[in-house]
Amino acid sequence: MSATIHRLPTDRPPSLDPMMALVAHDMNSVNAVILDRMQSDIPLIPELAGHLIAGGGKRMRPMLTLACARLLDYPGTRHHKLAASVEFIHTATLLHDDVVDQSDLRRGRRTANIIWGNPASVLVGDFLFSRSFELMVEDGSLKVLKILSNASAVIAEGEVNQLTAQRRIETGEDRYLAIIGAKTAALFAAACRISAVVAERSEAEELALDAYGRNLGIAFQLIDDAIDYASDAETMGKGVGDDFRDGKVTLPVILAHARGSDADKTFWRDAMEGRRVSDEDLAYATGLLRATRAIDDTVDRARFYGQRAIDALGGFPAGQAKAALTEAVEFAISRAY
Amino acid sequence: MSATIHRLPTDRPPSLDPMMALVAHDMNSVNAVILDRMQSDIPLIPELAGHLIAGGGKRMRPMLTLACARLLDYPGTRHHKLAASVEFIHTATLLHDDVVDQSDLRRGRRTANIIWGNPASVLVGDFLFSRSFELMVEDGSLKVLKILSNASAVIAEGEVNQLTAQRRIETGEDRYLAIIGAKTAALFAAACRISAVVAERSEAEELALDAYGRNLGIAFQLIDDAIDYASDAETMGKGVGDDFRDGKVTLPVILAHARGSDADKTFWRDAMEGRRVSDEDLAYATGLLRATRAIDDTVDRARFYGQRAIDALGGFPAGQAKAALTEAVEFAISRAY
Repeated sequence: MSATIHRLPTDRPPSLDPMMALVAHDMNSVNAVILDRMQSDIPLIPELAGHLIAGGGKRMRPMLTLACARLLDYPGTRHHKLAASVEFIHTATLLHDDVVDQSDLRRGRRTANIIWGNPASVLVGDFLFSRSFELMVEDGSLKVLKILSNASAVIAEGEVNQLTAQRRIETGEDRYLAIIGAKTAALFAAACRISAVVAERSEAEELALDAYGRNLGIAFQLIDDAIDYASDAETMGKGVGDDFRDGKVTLPVILAHARGSDADKTFWRDAMEGRRVSDEDLAYATGLLRATRAIDDTVDRARFYGQRAIDALGGFPAGQAKAALTEAVEFAISRAY
Repeated sequence: MSATIHRLPTDRPPSLDPMMALVAHDMNSVNAVILDRMQSDIPLIPELAGHLIAGGGKRMRPMLTLACARLLDYPGTRHHKLAASVEFIHTATLLHDDVVDQSDLRRGRRTANIIWGNPASVLVGDFLFSRSFELMVEDGSLKVLKILSNASAVIAEGEVNQLTAQRRIETGEDRYLAIIGAKTAALFAAACRISAVVAERSEAEELALDAYGRNLGIAFQLIDDAIDYASDAETMGKGVGDDFRDGKVTLPVILAHARGSDADKTFWRDAMEGRRVSDEDLAYATGLLRATRAIDDTVDRARFYGQRAIDALGGFPAGQAKAALTEAVEFAISRAY
């Protein structure tokens, strides 16, 4: 098989629709758990959490838990609570990320930290994080608890790693991959893997789904990082060039810097260190990214991880679930176009 | 028995020394776990966490886990990891608290958020919180996991409750007690309770130790809140009058406000809402607290909870551990003098 994504026999562009349709019924149950368990006697908690949770996210991670359970023909409902737990971990990290990055927009809406302030965002994040563990404890699987508590620690490590790499142009591709492997891919991997635990499948199947999720997560993040420099502004629901202005050294920048002239290297250092943040600077950066094929090759790297995700599913039987999980990878990549 | 604390037959002032001596050996093991498990490949994590963890805290909560295990003659070592887990939860909440309160001093030293910034404090807090769950999962008791995940959620709720009560002079004693019961006493209770779980004791014994810890925690917080207005500055290792300037409506303020004239009530409202924050205002507030006996009566309330803590130990056999736990209560109260 070549290193390109093998396309489904269809003319429509790849989308998450098949996966959404596949798990729609289960997702209703997950949403009910989410709504129920974000409640609290302290009104600010459901108010703030609800703003983000109801704010039009794709529920990508719980959707993966549900779709992988379908792949395994898991007949039970334990994964509903666990999928909600995964979403709570994700929501908690988003709340804290927006505080850390001082973001003012997410998914096209004002962030919680802008509306309610940093203190509330930090504390409600802590609450959701605790709730996620309460949900896991209710389920009662120590194996799931181990997978998700480890993923949580890895995510936090990845976030700190990213923080200390920020504004450092000398960050290399390996460190960048370690960062996104931790801050993004670890939860994708765990979300997929726990479906094999509740379905009581073999270690090999657990690891295959872990690999699917991890590679999909890396592909997703690579495309996100490419899109952040895309000239078409509407795709992200956040400002284009945010990473540029924040001095986040993502793969497009790493490639453009590595491939650039001495003058280019100086430009990138100045930009990442916060001395070139105007719209003109961003336009100039975009030009360098184009000249060095840095965006195209970031997408190419994403395609590589996407292919690995698809191949990780090789041992599972063909069917709706496998097709939907495969198309999710193609969708992830296609967002770059 | 009267409502006063029954004193030990000794002339020295009450202290934590007997409890520290009782658990010194165990605490070495706990410290080893703490040092080992705050490590990470990301150097900022142990650096930042170490600043707070090595920063001269009393290790009150893990000490309680260890002392309660001694009370129960627990012969094992499982509680070492769990005591470290409790300390990690506590450290994570301190890191986040200091971000929320924009504190610049803790235990007489600069806070992590001042040295490394809010983003690092938020993320390293998240890391320690995740690590604490990893430690619990390694121990493998779902019962302990349930107790501590619940305590964590309650703490976060208490913190949000406190945040929304901030600067609101109409906060009553009941709500204040709910706040400190959640943000402080819940972890004291859980720290004590889990010793009964690892020692495989009865539900009644679990609940007795829970009650001991909870009441001790409330007493501790009441005294902390009284000390914040104490004229003697050195006791706290943080600035005197911090609560006053932050508009934290603690019991001394609630009592002085309730008992004050209309003019006093106006003063307290102005102060809590941030319109009277000078040193003269603080001096005036201290005068009102004295005139209404608000500090004395806060200490009296603390003594009430302290007595309940001691009485909760009634069913356990006399001995070194019980004496040390009793003296810990007396120590908590004595800090007000």
